[in-house]
Amino acid sequence: MMEETEHHISQQFNQELRELRNQVLSMGGLVEEQLLNALTALVECDIQLAKRVYNSDYKINALEVAIDEDCSRIIARRQPAASDLRLLITVIKTIGDLERIGDEAERIAQMAMQEAEESPSRYFVAINHFGNHVKQMLHDALDAFARMDVDAALHVIREDLKVDNEYDSVSRQLMTYMMEDTRSIPLVMDIMWAARALERVAAHSRNVCEYVIYFVRGKDVRHVSVDKIEEVARVPK
Amino acid sequence: MMEETEHHISQQFNQELRELRNQVLSMGGLVEEQLLNALTALVECDIQLAKRVYNSDYKINALEVAIDEDCSRIIARRQPAASDLRLLITVIKTIGDLERIGDEAERIAQMAMQEAEESPSRYFVAINHFGNHVKQMLHDALDAFARMDVDAALHVIREDLKVDNEYDSVSRQLMTYMMEDTRSIPLVMDIMWAARALERVAAHSRNVCEYVIYFVRGKDVRHVSVDKIEEVARVPK
Repeated sequence: MMEETEHHISQQFNQELRELRNQVLSMGGLVEEQLLNALTALVECDIQLAKRVYNSDYKINALEVAIDEDCSRIIARRQPAASDLRLLITVIKTIGDLERIGDEAERIAQMAMQEAEESPSRYFVAINHFGNHVKQMLHDALDAFARMDVDAALHVIREDLKVDNEYDSVSRQLMTYMMEDTRSIPLVMDIMWAARALERVAAHSRNVCEYVIYFVRGKDVRHVSVDKIEEVARVPK
Repeated sequence: MMEETEHHISQQFNQELRELRNQVLSMGGLVEEQLLNALTALVECDIQLAKRVYNSDYKINALEVAIDEDCSRIIARRQPAASDLRLLITVIKTIGDLERIGDEAERIAQMAMQEAEESPSRYFVAINHFGNHVKQMLHDALDAFARMDVDAALHVIREDLKVDNEYDSVSRQLMTYMMEDTRSIPLVMDIMWAARALERVAAHSRNVCEYVIYFVRGKDVRHVSVDKIEEVARVPK
């Protein structure tokens, strides 16, 4: 009887942890949608869509607070150890980064709201391409989290190096636009801020992938070179 | 005898929590020093000092990883609840923000490293003043954490609104410098990035203060208006 109760409790616990992961994925889906809409609003000068993004950020914040509460409650009631505790820590960290990605999407939307209808489209070509790359990176990071897949996580971490180079080249290009035509400076500065926001989204996506490796391999790989991370990733726990 | 053992264990546990808070304060002291040096390096064009900041960031990262490990170990071994668990969550969140402040200091140092000796000093007047304000805010946030002082935390949260306005006025001013003299654009852009980094430092300092209120009052006050936070802060738990 005792064993059965314990089995029952552990089944309930597993169910709670599954729920928690699903909640993170819902939050991730919302964050992805916000980023997508913010970029579309920026590139297509769609002020209505930008406002929608701006007015939806509270949903992401509310999810962060709710999931954090769930984590605290689960830790207090279930007293988890080993991989269960690692999962909870992974969730707490991940939602922090997702919330910040939401903030960056909101920032991009703010830039889009300030845009004039007649903004020359050539300014947006570079950032559009860059934005698509970063969107893909976020998508892949959420996918790595969903499947707790170390190889997928590693792939995203490697992409972040490329994104950094791309960001440098986008900002250099934007700077030449400013130098060519000083009247363009306010608009191009806004695009510059949007590019910076995208670079941050990529960094947060990378963080999520580092937490995935921490969960699966039990090793903290933050602040570690990509070569070193690959070494850790190869060794099964 | 049993009671004595329990008393002993709880004393040990309290000691562990005290140690943990001290570790966070050490990390905070290091972060403060990095920010101070980065700003001095920027304003005084001191490339050696900038390099020192750049090469010291790893210490902050190492502290973050070590404190995170301690938190996990304490949660697994002590199975904390109520305010003990809140303290651990507060510490985990706080060190995340401190580490990011360290990154921003590193970014400011990178800008300082790119500077030419003959940079016109008028560009640095505005950011110097702004930097001093943000430094004070970080200092006050760490102080609020050290004393777990809700009023001090509230003060910092209110300051963050002023910092946002100051940031807007600094960036507008920098933009006019760029428009007046296109040759200044690359240098002024670097100062712009430094200003942005300072704005982020202020936001992270505010976050730390929100965690202080969460710890003391047991209410999550992130993503909440300052008026609402003041209401929560007034009600004793």
